Amino acid sequence: MRTLPELRSIVGEAGLRDADDARFWRDATEAQGLSGRPDAVVLPATREEVAAVVAWCYAHDVAIVPRGGGSGFSGGCVPVDGGVVVALDRMTRVRAFDPLLWRIHVEAGLRTSELRRLARENGLLFPPDPGAAEQSQIGGNVATNAGGPHAFKYGVTGRWVTGLEAVVAPGELIEVGGPLRKDVAGYDLKGLLIGSEGTLGIVTAAWLRLVPAPAAAIPVAAVYRHARDGCAALERVLGSGLEPAALEFLDAGALAAARDAFPSALPGDAAFMLLTEADGSAEEAARLAGELREALAEGALAVHAPKGPAETAALWRWRDGVSIAVTAQRGGKMSEDVAVPLDRLAEAIEATLEIGARHDLDACSWGHAGDGNLHATFLLDRRDPAQVARAEAAAVELFQLAGRLGGTISGEHGLGWVKRGHLGEQWSPAALRLHAAIKRTLDPKNLLNPGKKTG
Amino acid sequence: MRTLPELRSIVGEAGLRDADDARFWRDATEAQGLSGRPDAVVLPATREEVAAVVAWCYAHDVAIVPRGGGSGFSGGCVPVDGGVVVALDRMTRVRAFDPLLWRIHVEAGLRTSELRRLARENGLLFPPDPGAAEQSQIGGNVATNAGGPHAFKYGVTGRWVTGLEAVVAPGELIEVGGPLRKDVAGYDLKGLLIGSEGTLGIVTAAWLRLVPAPAAAIPVAAVYRHARDGCAALERVLGSGLEPAALEFLDAGALAAARDAFPSALPGDAAFMLLTEADGSAEEAARLAGELREALAEGALAVHAPKGPAETAALWRWRDGVSIAVTAQRGGKMSEDVAVPLDRLAEAIEATLEIGARHDLDACSWGHAGDGNLHATFLLDRRDPAQVARAEAAAVELFQLAGRLGGTISGEHGLGWVKRGHLGEQWSPAALRLHAAIKRTLDPKNLLNPGKKTG
Repeated sequence: MRTLPELRSIVGEAGLRDADDARFWRDATEAQGLSGRPDAVVLPATREEVAAVVAWCYAHDVAIVPRGGGSGFSGGCVPVDGGVVVALDRMTRVRAFDPLLWRIHVEAGLRTSELRRLARENGLLFPPDPGAAEQSQIGGNVATNAGGPHAFKYGVTGRWVTGLEAVVAPGELIEVGGPLRKDVAGYDLKGLLIGSEGTLGIVTAAWLRLVPAPAAAIPVAAVYRHARDGCAALERVLGSGLEPAALEFLDAGALAAARDAFPSALPGDAAFMLLTEADGSAEEAARLAGELREALAEGALAVHAPKGPAETAALWRWRDGVSIAVTAQRGGKMSEDVAVPLDRLAEAIEATLEIGARHDLDACSWGHAGDGNLHATFLLDRRDPAQVARAEAAAVELFQLAGRLGGTISGEHGLGWVKRGHLGEQWSPAALRLHAAIKRTLDPKNLLNPGKKTG
Repeated sequence: MRTLPELRSIVGEAGLRDADDARFWRDATEAQGLSGRPDAVVLPATREEVAAVVAWCYAHDVAIVPRGGGSGFSGGCVPVDGGVVVALDRMTRVRAFDPLLWRIHVEAGLRTSELRRLARENGLLFPPDPGAAEQSQIGGNVATNAGGPHAFKYGVTGRWVTGLEAVVAPGELIEVGGPLRKDVAGYDLKGLLIGSEGTLGIVTAAWLRLVPAPAAAIPVAAVYRHARDGCAALERVLGSGLEPAALEFLDAGALAAARDAFPSALPGDAAFMLLTEADGSAEEAARLAGELREALAEGALAVHAPKGPAETAALWRWRDGVSIAVTAQRGGKMSEDVAVPLDRLAEAIEATLEIGARHDLDACSWGHAGDGNLHATFLLDRRDPAQVARAEAAAVELFQLAGRLGGTISGEHGLGWVKRGHLGEQWSPAALRLHAAIKRTLDPKNLLNPGKKTG
């Protein structure tokens, strides 16, 4: 099999990268030690090149590992068993942008931050805001159906995709949807590809819906002495019919790790934080912020409402840094993005600590409270194999917990490689059979990101 | 094959209906003459009975025709070739309702109007508002991914479904999702079932997301002398960054048919109408209504803004009656729910008239302008077979038009029986092959609503 010359003839010298370049071996699971050397790395410049690469691989039984920005937390783009990495980095064109019609057509390799900037500069908003926006690409966001803090009001990536172009097995380009706001003609192939983590096809471009950018966004944060006070405040927000754009939380451990960097002073006994944001017209955001402040104040130790764009930006920068601050505690962590029904959130936060304690691991959680989506985390020193083993066992208990609470083992990162085989915690055997059957239907040779997202 | 005794043993006497009862032969395509006598009609009372009926039918190669409220416009529930009609009428339970958490779990047979009433009485909104809410059922809405006027701001039914329970071949119950706002663990089986028109499974229950009901909703309508003036106003609304809850239109023919019933006087030369609605808090709705009025006024003959709930309700009742008023012109019509990119709407409205003229048929259109979704309609007398034949030819030209404009042959009614085989106007052969492969995977014996929604 003359892989390299054949691939070179498709993507040219400019589209080949050194398979020894370790940047293509990993994603954000690198800290967990996940890595794999691919047999080749190609960066196609066009959809036709993507299709030709897939066609060649499919004809020659070579595995294909699609790659976006490499910021994933599930090892979805890691070539664990070799194969050809197909990175979308060179496909960054904006094919069409109609700001007056609230829509844009972009290639998969465009960075999320760039997309959001383009929208913003034209008075629009592309609402999904997963972390690592400077690194992640829109194709990867689509492939993982990425979420983020503002998903509470605005939903996850998939809600904003009106059309997809993708390469499917055995190397064919398909387009479903387009610059269309409604389409119920065929089965939802678009939805099937969204979140399929490169196991059913490779997204090469997307038509996205945008919305007018809210004129104002005003965060309101509050801290509590106990998680139960904070969770009560959370339910009070919803019960009062308030719809903030974001509704985040940090438990005691997460807050302790990040509190020194908080933009203002926090009471010493603060052990839980809710962080909300009111957006809309200036008047609407101010009104909602006032109502949020009132709903959060009951039982709170303090309420923090930044003034002006600079303070607002500082608060969100701080929120973005929570994960790193938690990691810094022991040098490593194992963090899982389970999601549960909202009324089980307090239980899931508590159970995370209990599971940690049973495995002799410090634990904490933070995340998207309004969506019941927590980053349940065990702190560890990765150099200690015993700690790592205990954390892995703890993670499995977390998955079981999510299933028991009627939740999901992944609210936003996907199964990838690290959660493969755990879908049975939440799905019945009949549903799992359909999951496997769909994979076989779209990828009969099991060459599209093999081993990933298996039930 | 002892169909009836076997089915009786599953659903009991109370769950059997007379197959001669013509109510189960039809849906809203009855006026087009579409009808079929089923071999049997069952009304299961539980999900287990639905599963047992499907299992029996699947084992005995008997076709299954799922049926909701029978208000569809595509013949999706018509037993054109016999089979067992499985009507969800008796499964109307609200399994759980957590108004403070903005969610509800309902069985498929619950009427849409009842669901909306329950939400409203608890300060919440279930946004999808397809027509015939008194007749349609939530299971049917899910199976067709029903839309409606307020889909412009709020999206179609699928956006509000967080969990589905369904019976799939060969008679197994599956549950995907639940009272969860985020879940990216498995492939989007939920999305695949939504809009599948009973051809991949039978929806038996759904977890739905609700939102706080807006305190106010203020319609603003404007009439124009020409469609082009109205379409320019439409683009002005979006270009100004205004997001109304609804953004509807009527062209000259539709307005002429319905104008006598309009709640206030209209200028004699009004030949196009835009109907928008501003919602939100009282202040927000008033502010947005003012801005809409301004954006609509340019080039308008008149602007109509009802005052108070009674006038608002009267205006929407009038809008609901447009389809009937159009039908009354000749006693019959052929109406197709194509959708196009917004900037092609004026062209699609114009082309509908041209296609009608080529086939010697009066034509008109109205619909969800903001979503580019028009009910492109040819008036006819159904007793004249020549007219019917010309209308059928005209409809095919409409489908081709939708494809040519980068649109869809169905923005909200689905393919059902009447548009079967036309998906090729918008999808490539590769995508059509996937469509067929998914059907084979989920329904290998082709017994779930056979012949419907075929590409």
